[in-house]
Amino acid sequence: MFKNILIIGFGMIGSSIARSVIKKYKNVNIFAFDKSNNLKIRIKKSKLNNVIVLKSLQEINKLNIDLIIICVPMLQYQSIFKKLSNINLDKTIVTDVGSTKLNIEKLYNQKKYKFNFIPSHPIAGIEKAGLEHGFDGLFTNRYNIICPLKKSSKTNINKIVRFWKSLNMKIEIMSAKEHDKVLSLTSHLPHLISYSLVLTAMKKESSLNSKLVKFSAGGFRDFTRVAGSDPEMWRDIFLANNSQILKLTNNFISELKNFSKTLNQGNSKNLLTKLKKTKNVRDRIVKARQAGKFIPND
Amino acid sequence: MFKNILIIGFGMIGSSIARSVIKKYKNVNIFAFDKSNNLKIRIKKSKLNNVIVLKSLQEINKLNIDLIIICVPMLQYQSIFKKLSNINLDKTIVTDVGSTKLNIEKLYNQKKYKFNFIPSHPIAGIEKAGLEHGFDGLFTNRYNIICPLKKSSKTNINKIVRFWKSLNMKIEIMSAKEHDKVLSLTSHLPHLISYSLVLTAMKKESSLNSKLVKFSAGGFRDFTRVAGSDPEMWRDIFLANNSQILKLTNNFISELKNFSKTLNQGNSKNLLTKLKKTKNVRDRIVKARQAGKFIPND
Repeated sequence: MFKNILIIGFGMIGSSIARSVIKKYKNVNIFAFDKSNNLKIRIKKSKLNNVIVLKSLQEINKLNIDLIIICVPMLQYQSIFKKLSNINLDKTIVTDVGSTKLNIEKLYNQKKYKFNFIPSHPIAGIEKAGLEHGFDGLFTNRYNIICPLKKSSKTNINKIVRFWKSLNMKIEIMSAKEHDKVLSLTSHLPHLISYSLVLTAMKKESSLNSKLVKFSAGGFRDFTRVAGSDPEMWRDIFLANNSQILKLTNNFISELKNFSKTLNQGNSKNLLTKLKKTKNVRDRIVKARQAGKFIPND
Repeated sequence: MFKNILIIGFGMIGSSIARSVIKKYKNVNIFAFDKSNNLKIRIKKSKLNNVIVLKSLQEINKLNIDLIIICVPMLQYQSIFKKLSNINLDKTIVTDVGSTKLNIEKLYNQKKYKFNFIPSHPIAGIEKAGLEHGFDGLFTNRYNIICPLKKSSKTNINKIVRFWKSLNMKIEIMSAKEHDKVLSLTSHLPHLISYSLVLTAMKKESSLNSKLVKFSAGGFRDFTRVAGSDPEMWRDIFLANNSQILKLTNNFISELKNFSKTLNQGNSKNLLTKLKKTKNVRDRIVKARQAGKFIPND
């Protein structure tokens, strides 16, 4: 297993990895590199005393870093990749947690980088950003999609698989293309919808005064949770998976029009059939233990 | 305060009212009337030992029922109203928990019913149906919208207000029309969207195999919770508030097209502005303590 792990981008996800590794392993050193000015103070306040802050990526070699995990918004990958390419990383595996994969694979291939890169995507998160919101159970029982490159060695793939598994994750291996297709449906479209619903509501809001917030427990609040996600991270995702998302949004608009038609016709029987169909999907998600838990009261 | 409360329709909401009343008051009798065949057994299993099951609504008079709460799907209101109109209810107040209000008001006015009816709508719920899923904290800190009729007396309105307040609810009074407008945005449209997203996903699913469920933690699962709501209840709501919902759905489709356009243009700056706007709404809901609590792991 890895002995010296560097986390580049020490936000909610980065710090959750640190917490999970610290809980699991006694003899692994965690290093953090982040553009935050007061990272040291924040790390200390968060009781992550054993995390060592790097001032520069040049320190990688003398510290024998054997695993680098990139946890920054995707628009910053280019500059991180460039910096890494100037460092000797023969004995290091690099992975990431980026939410789209095809764009990252292209970026890597375009410049013919040489470092050992095994892209991964842990499907886990909350809507809050910042290292203070990380916690060590974030990855438990969640899936992680690994998208190896053509040149990735089996040994390295296995190392990355074992690492995430040791943090209690379930592993799936697929191509970057397949990943982006699946995630456009299970994550990107839902986010686009949430943002759009909140925007629709905001346009109505002046006439509804404070009522939108007061009565949000009727369903609206569920959507605002997702729409509270980190804007920069989501800008990058939407732009990176542009064409898949556009296609799906069109499918979704058709479905909405279909629903409207049934409503407009007042077709009680058709309507009930539609509503009954969807219940089963929820049941399967609960059964697969991917549902999370919602507590109606705070 | 009321001494003998009859709950017609003893499902999740009905039993939550019973549990909340039992916890709050020592000397109030709770009666239940429901079409479920094994209601008595289910009530006993749920440890609601003090709830008395009625065989017929005719028993109302000899029991001095002073409050009736109707908790059945709205398509059943007509037959309940008819039965109530054949009973002497001079000393009884009738309220309900129906999710739309204009249709109910019309139903009552059309037949010129005489019983003392003060419609109400507690904005609280979970996606699970059945008395077994009720719990006594369901109403705590949630809003209840009361929509008095023209002929409702101030004394009776105040009694209903005090009753819900005593179960820790916050009260708003508005017209049935206003209620339906507000709820179409905060509840009905979100539900329509959830159902439509799940339907969109189901059409894609054959090619995605089991991936939809596995990777639902990326956002999709939030939508399936709402789409897991009781189909009959929601058929009734959609049909009752038809025109408001159709109007809003069109607004929402425009917003989606707008979003698609920004995406299609790859306009990074516009996109970020859109995404940043919506964060604030979530913050306000959390501040108003209407957000509930989501625990990512089960």
